[in-house]
Amino acid sequence: MKERIKKQLEFALEIDKEKNVFRQTSLSGKGRKENDAEHAWHMAIMAYLLREYSNEEINMEKTMMMCLIHDIVEIDAGDTYAYDEEGKKTQKERENAAKERIFSILPEDQKEDLTALFEEFEEGVTPEARFARAMDNIQPLMLNDSNDGGDWREHGVSAKDVYTRHEMTKLGSEEIYEVSDEIIQKNIKKGNLIPANLL
Amino acid sequence: MKERIKKQLEFALEIDKEKNVFRQTSLSGKGRKENDAEHAWHMAIMAYLLREYSNEEINMEKTMMMCLIHDIVEIDAGDTYAYDEEGKKTQKERENAAKERIFSILPEDQKEDLTALFEEFEEGVTPEARFARAMDNIQPLMLNDSNDGGDWREHGVSAKDVYTRHEMTKLGSEEIYEVSDEIIQKNIKKGNLIPANLL
Repeated sequence: MKERIKKQLEFALEIDKEKNVFRQTSLSGKGRKENDAEHAWHMAIMAYLLREYSNEEINMEKTMMMCLIHDIVEIDAGDTYAYDEEGKKTQKERENAAKERIFSILPEDQKEDLTALFEEFEEGVTPEARFARAMDNIQPLMLNDSNDGGDWREHGVSAKDVYTRHEMTKLGSEEIYEVSDEIIQKNIKKGNLIPANLL
Repeated sequence: MKERIKKQLEFALEIDKEKNVFRQTSLSGKGRKENDAEHAWHMAIMAYLLREYSNEEINMEKTMMMCLIHDIVEIDAGDTYAYDEEGKKTQKERENAAKERIFSILPEDQKEDLTALFEEFEEGVTPEARFARAMDNIQPLMLNDSNDGGDWREHGVSAKDVYTRHEMTKLGSEEIYEVSDEIIQKNIKKGNLIPANLL
Protein backbone atom coordinates (compact mmCIF):
# COMPACT_ATOMS: atom_id res chain seq x y z
CA MET A 1 0.00 0.00 0.00
CA LYS A 2 1.37 3.43 -0.92
CA GLU A 3 2.42 5.67 1.97
CA ARG A 4 -0.11 8.40 1.12
CA ILE A 5 -3.25 6.26 1.09
CA LYS A 6 -1.95 4.39 4.15
CA LYS A 7 -1.87 7.67 6.08
CA GLN A 8 -5.32 8.64 4.82
CA LEU A 9 -6.79 5.33 5.94
CA GLU A 10 -4.97 5.54 9.26
CA PHE A 11 -6.65 8.91 9.85
CA ALA A 12 -10.03 7.51 8.76
CA LEU A 13 -9.63 4.70 11.27
CA GLU A 14 -8.51 7.08 14.04
CA ILE A 15 -11.60 9.26 13.74
CA ASP A 16 -13.79 6.19 14.25
CA LYS A 17 -13.22 7.00 17.94
CA GLU A 18 -15.47 10.03 17.62
CA LYS A 19 -18.42 7.63 17.73
CA ASN A 20 -17.57 7.07 21.38
CA VAL A 21 -17.51 10.73 22.41
CA PHE A 22 -20.89 11.41 23.96
CA ARG A 23 -22.55 14.78 24.21
CA GLN A 24 -25.06 16.15 26.69
CA THR A 25 -27.86 16.18 24.13
CA SER A 26 -30.34 13.31 24.12
CA LEU A 27 -31.69 11.74 20.97
CA SER A 28 -35.34 12.39 20.12
CA GLY A 29 -37.84 10.17 21.88
CA LYS A 30 -35.94 10.85 25.14
CA GLY A 31 -33.31 8.39 23.98
CA ARG A 32 -29.71 7.92 25.00
CA LYS A 33 -27.15 10.71 24.68
CA GLU A 34 -25.97 11.51 21.17
CA ASN A 35 -22.34 11.12 20.11
CA ASP A 36 -20.18 13.54 18.15
CA ALA A 37 -20.25 11.59 14.88
CA GLU A 38 -24.05 11.45 14.88
CA HIS A 39 -24.28 15.15 15.73
CA ALA A 40 -21.91 16.06 12.89
CA TRP A 41 -23.83 13.88 10.40
CA HIS A 42 -27.06 15.57 11.40
CA MET A 43 -25.57 19.08 11.10
CA ALA A 44 -24.17 18.43 7.62
CA ILE A 45 -27.55 17.27 6.29
CA MET A 46 -29.27 20.23 7.93
CA ALA A 47 -26.74 22.61 6.33
CA TYR A 48 -27.62 21.18 2.92
CA LEU A 49 -31.38 21.45 3.53
CA LEU A 50 -31.42 24.88 5.19
CA ARG A 51 -28.86 26.72 3.07
CA GLU A 52 -31.52 28.99 1.59
CA TYR A 53 -31.64 30.72 5.00
CA SER A 54 -27.95 31.60 5.13
CA ASN A 55 -27.40 35.36 5.45
CA GLU A 56 -24.72 35.12 2.77
CA GLU A 57 -23.87 32.89 -0.18
CA ILE A 58 -22.01 29.81 1.00
CA ASN A 59 -19.95 27.05 -0.53
CA MET A 60 -21.79 23.89 0.49
CA GLU A 61 -18.88 21.43 0.18
CA LYS A 62 -16.84 23.53 2.57
CA THR A 63 -19.76 24.07 4.96
CA MET A 64 -20.57 20.37 5.10
CA MET A 65 -16.97 19.35 5.68
CA MET A 66 -16.70 21.89 8.51
CA CYS A 67 -19.80 20.39 10.08
CA LEU A 68 -18.41 16.88 9.72
CA ILE A 69 -15.03 17.53 11.36
CA HIS A 70 -15.73 20.36 13.83
CA ASP A 71 -15.66 18.09 16.88
CA ILE A 72 -12.80 15.76 15.92
CA VAL A 73 -10.48 17.14 18.61
CA GLU A 74 -12.88 15.81 21.22
CA ILE A 75 -11.49 12.33 20.56
CA ASP A 76 -8.67 13.42 22.89
CA ALA A 77 -10.14 16.45 24.61
CA GLY A 78 -13.63 15.13 25.38
CA ASP A 79 -16.90 16.99 24.96
CA THR A 80 -17.23 20.24 26.90
CA TYR A 81 -20.90 21.04 27.51
CA ALA A 82 -21.91 24.39 26.04
CA TYR A 83 -22.90 25.63 29.48
CA ASP A 84 -19.99 24.16 31.50
CA GLU A 85 -18.01 27.26 32.52
CA GLU A 86 -15.34 25.31 34.47
CA GLY A 87 -14.61 22.92 31.60
CA LYS A 88 -14.39 25.79 29.16
CA LYS A 89 -11.35 27.24 30.99
CA THR A 90 -9.08 24.37 29.89
CA GLN A 91 -10.96 23.52 26.70
CA LYS A 92 -8.78 25.54 24.32
CA GLU A 93 -5.50 24.04 25.54
CA ARG A 94 -6.81 20.47 25.44
CA GLU A 95 -8.25 20.95 21.99
CA ASN A 96 -5.10 22.50 20.52
CA ALA A 97 -2.98 19.52 21.51
CA ALA A 98 -5.58 17.17 20.06
CA LYS A 99 -5.78 19.13 16.81
CA GLU A 100 -2.04 18.81 16.30
CA ARG A 101 -1.92 15.10 17.09
CA ILE A 102 -4.96 14.00 15.10
CA PHE A 103 -4.55 16.03 11.92
CA SER A 104 -0.82 15.14 11.82
CA ILE A 105 -1.80 11.58 10.91
CA LEU A 106 -2.78 12.88 7.45
CA PRO A 107 -0.42 13.70 4.56
CA GLU A 108 0.88 17.26 5.02
CA ASP A 109 -1.40 18.93 2.43
CA GLN A 110 -4.50 17.37 3.95
CA LYS A 111 -3.35 18.16 7.47
CA GLU A 112 -3.18 21.80 6.41
CA ASP A 113 -6.56 21.70 4.68
CA LEU A 114 -8.43 20.12 7.57
CA THR A 115 -6.67 22.22 10.22
CA ALA A 116 -7.63 25.36 8.29
CA LEU A 117 -11.26 24.24 8.00
CA PHE A 118 -11.34 23.37 11.69
CA GLU A 119 -9.91 26.76 12.68
CA GLU A 120 -12.22 28.61 10.32
CA PHE A 121 -15.19 27.02 12.06
CA GLU A 122 -13.78 27.94 15.47
CA GLU A 123 -13.20 31.56 14.47
CA GLY A 124 -16.72 31.85 13.09
CA VAL A 125 -16.01 34.77 10.78
CA THR A 126 -16.58 33.49 7.22
CA PRO A 127 -20.12 32.92 5.89
CA GLU A 128 -19.53 29.14 5.81
CA ALA A 129 -18.28 29.05 9.39
CA ARG A 130 -21.17 31.17 10.59
CA PHE A 131 -23.72 28.99 8.89
CA ALA A 132 -22.07 25.81 10.18
CA ARG A 133 -22.10 27.31 13.69
CA ALA A 134 -25.81 28.06 13.27
CA MET A 135 -26.28 24.34 12.51
CA ASP A 136 -24.24 23.48 15.62
CA ASN A 137 -26.86 25.44 17.58
CA ILE A 138 -30.15 24.60 15.88
CA GLN A 139 -29.50 20.84 15.79
CA PRO A 140 -29.39 20.30 19.60
CA LEU A 141 -32.07 22.98 20.10
CA MET A 142 -34.38 20.96 17.86
CA LEU A 143 -33.63 17.70 19.70
CA ASN A 144 -33.96 19.27 23.12
CA ASP A 145 -37.26 20.90 22.16
CA SER A 146 -38.54 17.53 20.93
CA ASN A 147 -37.71 16.10 24.37
CA ASP A 148 -39.56 18.82 26.25
CA GLY A 149 -36.29 20.49 27.27
CA GLY A 150 -35.04 17.55 29.31
CA ASP A 151 -31.35 18.32 28.78
CA TRP A 152 -31.76 21.93 29.90
CA ARG A 153 -33.72 20.93 32.98
CA GLU A 154 -31.10 18.33 33.85
CA HIS A 155 -28.38 21.01 33.84
CA GLY A 156 -30.47 23.95 35.08
CA VAL A 157 -29.69 25.97 31.96
CA SER A 158 -31.06 29.52 31.76
CA ALA A 159 -32.65 31.25 28.79
CA LYS A 160 -29.82 33.78 29.01
CA ASP A 161 -27.22 31.02 28.45
CA VAL A 162 -29.09 29.80 25.41
CA TYR A 163 -29.55 33.28 23.98
CA THR A 164 -25.82 34.01 24.39
CA ARG A 165 -25.01 30.90 22.41
CA HIS A 166 -27.55 31.77 19.74
CA GLU A 167 -25.93 35.13 19.02
CA MET A 168 -23.80 33.09 16.60
CA THR A 169 -26.91 31.65 14.96
CA LYS A 170 -28.01 35.18 14.10
CA LEU A 171 -24.70 35.87 12.35
CA GLY A 172 -25.21 32.80 10.17
CA SER A 173 -28.92 33.07 9.54
CA GLU A 174 -31.45 35.67 10.66
CA GLU A 175 -34.30 33.35 9.72
CA ILE A 176 -32.98 30.39 11.68
CA TYR A 177 -32.41 32.73 14.60
CA GLU A 178 -36.08 33.75 14.49
CA VAL A 179 -37.15 30.12 14.53
CA SER A 180 -34.73 29.43 17.40
CA ASP A 181 -36.14 32.38 19.31
CA GLU A 182 -39.64 30.99 18.87
CA ILE A 183 -38.50 27.61 20.22
CA ILE A 184 -36.64 29.19 23.17
CA GLN A 185 -39.65 31.34 24.11
CA LYS A 186 -41.90 28.30 24.03
CA ASN A 187 -39.55 26.47 26.38
CA ILE A 188 -39.37 29.40 28.80
CA LYS A 189 -43.17 29.38 28.99
CA LYS A 190 -43.15 25.64 29.63
CA GLY A 191 -40.68 26.08 32.50
CA ASN A 192 -37.92 24.17 30.69
CA LEU A 193 -35.51 27.13 30.69
CA ILE A 194 -34.94 29.48 33.62
CA PRO A 195 -36.08 32.97 32.48
CA ALA A 196 -33.73 35.97 32.82
CA ASN A 197 -35.78 37.65 35.60
CA LEU A 198 -35.27 34.67 37.91
CA LEU A 199 -31.45 34.68 37.75
CA MET B 1 -43.04 29.38 11.96
CA LYS B 2 -43.38 29.35 8.19
CA GLU B 3 -44.71 26.16 6.62
CA ARG B 4 -41.55 25.53 4.58
CA ILE B 5 -39.02 25.64 7.41
CA LYS B 6 -41.45 23.71 9.61
CA LYS B 7 -41.39 20.84 7.09
CA GLN B 8 -37.62 21.01 6.80
CA LEU B 9 -37.19 20.78 10.57
CA GLU B 10 -39.76 18.01 10.77
CA PHE B 11 -37.68 16.03 8.30
CA ALA B 12 -34.49 16.83 10.22
CA LEU B 13 -36.12 15.52 13.39
CA GLU B 14 -37.44 12.40 11.65
CA ILE B 15 -34.02 11.34 10.41
CA ASP B 16 -32.71 11.46 13.98
CA LYS B 17 -34.10 7.90 14.10
CA GLU B 18 -31.29 6.74 11.83
CA LYS B 19 -29.03 6.85 14.89
CA ASN B 20 -30.94 3.85 16.17
CA VAL B 21 -30.56 1.69 13.07
CA PHE B 22 -27.66 -0.65 13.80
CA ARG B 23 -25.51 -2.34 11.21
CA GLN B 24 -23.55 -5.58 11.32
CA THR B 25 -20.21 -3.78 11.37
CA SER B 26 -18.44 -3.31 14.69
CA LEU B 27 -16.61 -0.13 15.63
CA SER B 28 -12.82 -0.30 15.79
CA GLY B 29 -11.39 -1.68 19.02
CA LYS B 30 -13.95 -4.53 18.77
CA GLY B 31 -16.58 -2.11 19.99
CA ARG B 32 -20.36 -2.18 19.72
CA LYS B 33 -22.11 -2.32 16.35
CA GLU B 34 -22.11 0.88 14.32
CA ASN B 35 -25.31 2.72 13.40
CA ASP B 36 -26.31 4.14 10.04
CA ALA B 37 -25.73 7.79 10.95
CA GLU B 38 -22.18 7.08 12.13
CA HIS B 39 -21.46 5.01 9.03
CA ALA B 40 -22.73 7.80 6.75
CA TRP B 41 -20.68 10.43 8.59
CA HIS B 42 -17.59 8.31 8.20
CA MET B 43 -18.20 7.72 4.48
CA ALA B 44 -18.69 11.42 3.74
CA ILE B 45 -15.38 12.36 5.37
CA MET B 46 -13.63 9.52 3.55
CA ALA B 47 -15.10 10.70 0.24
CA TYR B 48 -13.62 14.14 0.86
CA LEU B 49 -10.20 12.76 1.80
CA LEU B 50 -9.93 10.08 -0.89
CA ARG B 51 -11.41 11.91 -3.88
CA GLU B 52 -8.03 11.99 -5.65
CA TYR B 53 -8.51 8.26 -6.28
CA SER B 54 -11.85 8.57 -8.06
CA ASN B 55 -11.72 7.13 -11.58
CA GLU B 56 -13.54 10.21 -12.84
CA GLU B 57 -13.98 13.85 -11.81
CA ILE B 58 -16.66 14.13 -9.16
CA ASN B 59 -18.73 16.89 -7.61
CA MET B 60 -17.90 16.64 -3.92
CA GLU B 61 -21.03 18.33 -2.54
CA LYS B 62 -23.20 15.81 -4.37
CA THR B 63 -21.01 12.86 -3.41
CA MET B 64 -21.01 13.80 0.26
CA MET B 65 -24.76 14.33 0.37
CA MET B 66 -25.29 10.92 -1.26
CA CYS B 67 -23.09 9.36 1.40
CA LEU B 68 -25.00 11.14 4.15
CA ILE B 69 -28.50 10.09 3.08
CA HIS B 70 -27.96 6.73 1.34
CA ASP B 71 -29.31 4.69 4.26
CA ILE B 72 -32.20 6.93 5.35
CA VAL B 73 -34.84 4.44 4.19
CA GLU B 74 -33.56 2.00 6.79
CA ILE B 75 -35.40 4.04 9.42
CA ASP B 76 -38.47 2.10 8.30
CA ALA B 77 -36.95 -0.79 6.37
CA GLY B 78 -34.17 -1.76 8.77
CA ASP B 79 -30.60 -2.62 7.84
CA THR B 80 -30.17 -5.55 5.46
CA TYR B 81 -26.72 -7.10 5.90
CA ALA B 82 -24.70 -7.07 2.70
CA TYR B 83 -24.47 -10.85 2.76
CA ASP B 84 -28.05 -11.67 3.88
CA GLU B 85 -29.57 -13.23 0.76
CA GLU B 86 -33.01 -13.85 2.36
CA GLY B 87 -33.40 -10.28 3.57
CA LYS B 88 -32.34 -8.93 0.20
CA LYS B 89 -35.42 -10.48 -1.47
CA THR B 90 -37.82 -8.07 0.25
CA GLN B 91 -35.35 -5.22 0.67
CA LYS B 92 -36.36 -3.26 -2.44
CA GLU B 93 -40.07 -3.25 -1.63
CA ARG B 94 -39.52 -2.22 1.99
CA GLU B 95 -37.11 0.50 0.98
CA ASN B 96 -39.38 1.96 -1.71
CA ALA B 97 -42.24 2.46 0.72
CA ALA B 98 -39.85 4.06 3.21
CA LYS B 99 -38.39 6.36 0.57
CA GLU B 100 -41.83 7.69 -0.32
CA ARG B 101 -42.89 8.22 3.29
CA ILE B 102 -39.71 9.82 4.59
CA PHE B 103 -38.82 12.16 1.75
CA SER B 104 -42.49 13.29 1.51
CA ILE B 105 -42.01 15.11 4.81
CA LEU B 106 -39.88 17.67 2.93
CA PRO B 107 -41.15 20.53 0.74
CA GLU B 108 -41.80 19.17 -2.78
CA ASP B 109 -38.61 20.54 -4.41
CA GLN B 110 -36.40 19.06 -1.71
CA LYS B 111 -38.31 15.78 -1.77
CA GLU B 112 -37.45 15.58 -5.47
CA ASP B 113 -33.82 16.53 -4.92
CA LEU B 114 -33.16 14.01 -2.16
CA THR B 115 -35.13 11.24 -3.86
CA ALA B 116 -33.07 11.78 -7.01
CA LEU B 117 -29.80 11.69 -5.06
CA PHE B 118 -30.91 8.56 -3.22
CA GLU B 119 -31.84 6.80 -6.47
CA GLU B 120 -28.66 7.91 -8.20
CA PHE B 121 -26.67 6.24 -5.43
CA GLU B 122 -28.75 3.07 -5.73
CA GLU B 123 -28.30 2.90 -9.50
CA GLY B 124 -24.54 3.37 -9.18
CA VAL B 125 -24.00 4.69 -12.70
CA THR B 126 -22.75 8.27 -12.34
CA PRO B 127 -19.16 8.97 -11.21
CA GLU B 128 -20.45 10.43 -7.92
CA ALA B 129 -22.63 7.41 -7.18
CA ARG B 130 -19.82 5.03 -8.02
CA PHE B 131 -17.37 6.81 -5.78
CA ALA B 132 -19.92 7.02 -2.94
CA ARG B 133 -20.56 3.26 -3.36
CA ALA B 134 -16.80 2.67 -3.14
CA MET B 135 -16.89 4.52 0.21
CA ASP B 136 -19.83 2.35 1.30
CA ASN B 137 -17.51 -0.64 0.75
CA ILE B 138 -14.13 0.57 1.95
CA GLN B 139 -15.46 2.02 5.22
CA PRO B 140 -16.72 -1.28 6.72
CA LEU B 141 -13.79 -3.18 5.14
CA MET B 142 -11.41 -0.89 7.02
CA LEU B 143 -13.27 -1.35 10.32
CA ASN B 144 -13.58 -5.09 9.89
CA ASP B 145 -9.90 -5.42 9.03
CA SER B 146 -9.01 -3.42 12.16
CA ASN B 147 -11.02 -5.93 14.19
CA ASP B 148 -9.26 -8.94 12.70
CA GLY B 149 -12.29 -9.79 10.55
CA GLY B 150 -14.61 -10.43 13.49
CA ASP B 151 -17.79 -9.48 11.62
CA TRP B 152 -16.99 -11.80 8.72
CA ARG B 153 -16.19 -14.68 11.02
CA GLU B 154 -19.41 -14.09 12.95
CA HIS B 155 -21.44 -14.44 9.73
CA GLY B 156 -19.24 -16.97 7.92
CA VAL B 157 -18.69 -14.63 4.99
CA SER B 158 -16.66 -15.88 2.03
CA ALA B 159 -14.01 -14.04 0.06
CA LYS B 160 -16.23 -14.52 -3.00
CA ASP B 161 -19.07 -12.58 -1.32
CA VAL B 162 -16.71 -9.75 -0.51
CA TYR B 163 -15.19 -9.66 -3.99
CA THR B 164 -18.67 -9.55 -5.57
CA ARG B 165 -19.51 -6.53 -3.47
CA HIS B 166 -16.22 -4.86 -4.30
CA GLU B 167 -16.88 -4.99 -8.06
CA MET B 168 -18.62 -1.67 -7.41
CA THR B 169 -15.52 -0.30 -5.69
CA LYS B 170 -13.55 -0.89 -8.88
CA LEU B 171 -16.06 1.15 -10.90
CA GLY B 172 -15.58 4.07 -8.52
CA SER B 173 -11.87 3.83 -7.94
CA GLU B 174 -9.27 1.43 -9.33
CA GLU B 175 -6.80 2.50 -6.66
CA ILE B 176 -9.16 1.95 -3.76
CA TYR B 177 -10.04 -1.41 -5.27
CA GLU B 178 -6.36 -2.37 -5.23
CA VAL B 179 -6.07 -1.43 -1.58
CA SER B 180 -9.28 -3.36 -0.82
CA ASP B 181 -7.89 -6.38 -2.63
CA GLU B 182 -4.75 -6.20 -0.51
CA ILE B 183 -6.87 -6.11 2.66
CA ILE B 184 -9.11 -8.99 1.50
CA GLN B 185 -6.10 -11.17 0.61
CA LYS B 186 -4.56 -10.50 4.01
CA ASN B 187 -7.80 -11.60 5.69
CA ILE B 188 -8.04 -14.77 3.61
CA LYS B 189 -4.51 -15.69 4.72
CA LYS B 190 -5.46 -15.04 8.33
CA GLY B 191 -8.48 -17.33 8.04
CA ASN B 192 -10.97 -14.49 8.55
CA LEU B 193 -12.64 -14.99 5.16
CA ILE B 194 -13.53 -18.36 3.64
CA PRO B 195 -11.45 -18.73 0.45
CA ALA B 196 -13.15 -19.59 -2.89
CA ASN B 197 -11.65 -23.10 -3.09
CA LEU B 198 -13.37 -24.11 0.15
CA LEU B 199 -16.91 -23.19 -0.95
